[in-house]
Amino acid sequence: MASFTLHEDPCSGNCYKIKLTAALLGLPLATRQYDITKGETRTTEFLSQVNANGRIPVLEIGDGDAARFLPESNAACWYLADGSDLIPADRFSRADMLRWMFFEQYNHEPNVATLRFWLSIIGEAGLSDAQRGQIAAKRAGGEAALRLMNDHLATHDWFTDSGPTLADVALYAYTHVSEEGGFRLGDYPAVSAWLARVAALPGYIAMT
Amino acid sequence: MASFTLHEDPCSGNCYKIKLTAALLGLPLATRQYDITKGETRTTEFLSQVNANGRIPVLEIGDGDAARFLPESNAACWYLADGSDLIPADRFSRADMLRWMFFEQYNHEPNVATLRFWLSIIGEAGLSDAQRGQIAAKRAGGEAALRLMNDHLATHDWFTDSGPTLADVALYAYTHVSEEGGFRLGDYPAVSAWLARVAALPGYIAMT
Repeated sequence: MASFTLHEDPCSGNCYKIKLTAALLGLPLATRQYDITKGETRTTEFLSQVNANGRIPVLEIGDGDAARFLPESNAACWYLADGSDLIPADRFSRADMLRWMFFEQYNHEPNVATLRFWLSIIGEAGLSDAQRGQIAAKRAGGEAALRLMNDHLATHDWFTDSGPTLADVALYAYTHVSEEGGFRLGDYPAVSAWLARVAALPGYIAMT
Repeated sequence: MASFTLHEDPCSGNCYKIKLTAALLGLPLATRQYDITKGETRTTEFLSQVNANGRIPVLEIGDGDAARFLPESNAACWYLADGSDLIPADRFSRADMLRWMFFEQYNHEPNVATLRFWLSIIGEAGLSDAQRGQIAAKRAGGEAALRLMNDHLATHDWFTDSGPTLADVALYAYTHVSEEGGFRLGDYPAVSAWLARVAALPGYIAMT
């Protein structure tokens, strides 16, 4: 089996998704840390060798000259889980899992994760006027995403009909720390119950 | 084979992706049109029956009481193409295809597609101050996405090493009309050459 190294910032929920996927699958995963607030993923070395897009996470598969680099958190989760029960065998469920993973990157992460980054990691005093001007829209967008999740989870244990999948892993990562971005999980009881189900999965690891 | 109906707005590149995927695969696809500028995807009927997220495209699979609804353009493309050559059989290439599709939804669409929608469909006079305040950032984000694509395509014919895939379909949709959002395709010669390769694929249909 190829060795896996995750290029990551431990504060990032996108990185945690990949670590949680590996843990649920029992796969060993080495890590190499960067501090995105210090621009460590924008160096010439990082851009030329790891990811020209200047972003973490990146999953390095294999090592040395044969290493291949896979950016985008949800694609890295897919690579690790390919062939496992975390990706449904049923055609509709597999596409439906991807539907929730694209929702996560389009409707959830840019609102829920960005507000956590701005308010808890950068801190409100360090925000630009342009960032401050977007807080209300991101709050509304994040609440809409959490409401949609809550409505779905009110009648479903997991996001697809095939038990826990990568859709649950992807949406768990930033949802379970969303209070750091000023969201109130108490407003979303079905989401809170689902968070507890994810945390009880065999092999689960916490975000550190 | 199940029947397919696309709930769409013909102006949307996200809808066109699905029509292009079906055309490349030779699959019949019925359509039902909505005008998003008139709020036709926010009606009670649409929210309860088609997509609680109030967005198109949605792929309806089957009909009547057995119909299932799949939102998110890239997930719908995946459903149609599952088992075809548009999704690589190789494990790394398959994940790498998803990497570019997540990049499309996270780095490309919110910049390149949004500026086209704001400048060519709504029109600059109809924008809010908050929207106007985001134009410069979206311009920079869109140019960065096009530059990354151009750098990749300078040494590759397609986004993955497995020939044309859904990654090419997904990125083609808004890139080929990016000049409607004020981007200059002449600045990205490798992108322009790739657009011509996509348009030459057997079964290709234009966006109407």
